[in-house]
Amino acid sequence: MNTLEFGQALAELAADRRHGASELARQCLQIITQSARQVDVQTVSELRQVLTERAAALAASRPSMTPIQTLLVRWQDVLAALPDRDLAAARDQAATAAQNLLEESDQAMHRTATHARNLIKNNQTIITHSVSSTIREVFHQLRDAQIRVILTESRPLYEGRQLAEQLADWNISTTLITDAQLGLFTAEAHLALVGADAILADGSVINKAGTSLLALAAREHMTPFYVCAESFKQRPATLGEPTYEEMAPEEVAPVHTLASPYITIRNIYFDRTPAHLISGWINEHGVQRP
Amino acid sequence: MNTLEFGQALAELAADRRHGASELARQCLQIITQSARQVDVQTVSELRQVLTERAAALAASRPSMTPIQTLLVRWQDVLAALPDRDLAAARDQAATAAQNLLEESDQAMHRTATHARNLIKNNQTIITHSVSSTIREVFHQLRDAQIRVILTESRPLYEGRQLAEQLADWNISTTLITDAQLGLFTAEAHLALVGADAILADGSVINKAGTSLLALAAREHMTPFYVCAESFKQRPATLGEPTYEEMAPEEVAPVHTLASPYITIRNIYFDRTPAHLISGWINEHGVQRP
Repeated sequence: MNTLEFGQALAELAADRRHGASELARQCLQIITQSARQVDVQTVSELRQVLTERAAALAASRPSMTPIQTLLVRWQDVLAALPDRDLAAARDQAATAAQNLLEESDQAMHRTATHARNLIKNNQTIITHSVSSTIREVFHQLRDAQIRVILTESRPLYEGRQLAEQLADWNISTTLITDAQLGLFTAEAHLALVGADAILADGSVINKAGTSLLALAAREHMTPFYVCAESFKQRPATLGEPTYEEMAPEEVAPVHTLASPYITIRNIYFDRTPAHLISGWINEHGVQRP
Repeated sequence: MNTLEFGQALAELAADRRHGASELARQCLQIITQSARQVDVQTVSELRQVLTERAAALAASRPSMTPIQTLLVRWQDVLAALPDRDLAAARDQAATAAQNLLEESDQAMHRTATHARNLIKNNQTIITHSVSSTIREVFHQLRDAQIRVILTESRPLYEGRQLAEQLADWNISTTLITDAQLGLFTAEAHLALVGADAILADGSVINKAGTSLLALAAREHMTPFYVCAESFKQRPATLGEPTYEEMAPEEVAPVHTLASPYITIRNIYFDRTPAHLISGWINEHGVQRP
């Protein structure tokens, strides 16, 4: 993967609105693997330098998505241990470390989904917001089950519509609503289940904007609210406060027709759900309750 | 207004997504006025019958919008008192009664808005959801004021965009957000202010879907949450439980691409905000607090 190809991959990653944090983190490890194997360098020292730079660029591209940062930080441990005089072996060790982490992350996601699936009983209704690979895997494990899923369209880019189509392929009954109807439909659900882009040290959760509204509605209707997120999503204090990514206003409204010095369109993608609204955190090790 | 014209007016009313309950109630009184003056009848008895039928049809066209029902019920008092043998005088009395109620409703709306305006101080930020003529009048009275308004796009038909343009015309700084960002932006507001389609006997409020989410976010962030609604919107117990109007699923998503026996698209327009989330009810008589 040469510099141009890396630049293109980085741009795609920064613009990606269809995949959740875990999936993009695994894409980053894939990019690192290809970079380790193919980047045009002559020495191990150069390899170390290029890979360090690329990892930093990848981590910075999606500041709200903690697993990208935690997995790349963990991967960087391998760099110090690379054999200084054997470039081929160094490439292989760096690539293998990235692949191992990718598999570890994938397994953690599947195990997390299994713990979540075990909370769900036949004939129950589950409400969710936005899309995450972990939540998708929960429903994949529940395909053909007698459950009903209420899901939001998830503005601005309506990724809930794609999830509805996916669930229909798995023979799962789905009710698609606008985000604004969350207050109406949470009352019908036995369980609210969401993914996460980050879990902070105090247990609060960063996820797609609107998640905090679902959590508030769940408390009001006494619906248990669970967060489903592998431990890679736990944001270490060393990473500092999380950033709330903001995307183009054009995604929200036709900017040209609303052009006025008096109108500002905001498009923040993430909000923070405080820990006191959360009934349980599900990761690959099981369910943790407050 | 002949039968055909009345049918067209009724269909337009049933399909109207741009105007709030007060405005549509005043349109109904306008239709009754024109009907009283022009409908093709020969006797006062026939006039009474046609007007009673038209009032019932108008009231049934928007079951979630209480002022349509309360104003038409009040207007019908005039029918019994019409002079039996003077059709011209009867037409005039029925029309005048409707016009008087229309003016009374309009004055109540302006007075309500003035009470709301008096709660707002310079340099404050107000958050609102959806559009109501009363809320629009509050901001009309605040034109050129040093305030900031955060408003939601209000899915499915994005009526918030039009309100943003209106406020810009009045030199009011406006921040337009998706409904899903309510949790993020309520924290920035000094005051949440919404209109209502109905206020129930227990003080709970029927308004555009999403209003209950704003109320929940307001409680979480300790932002006062006020409802601005003339007394015509108080739903008498005799009218029974309110209906939550549901509109076409096509407004929410492209139904043809999501055609599947497993997918149901829901488009309920109203939700109910319980009284315990409301800091105050503002009507033409002033502000009532719990």
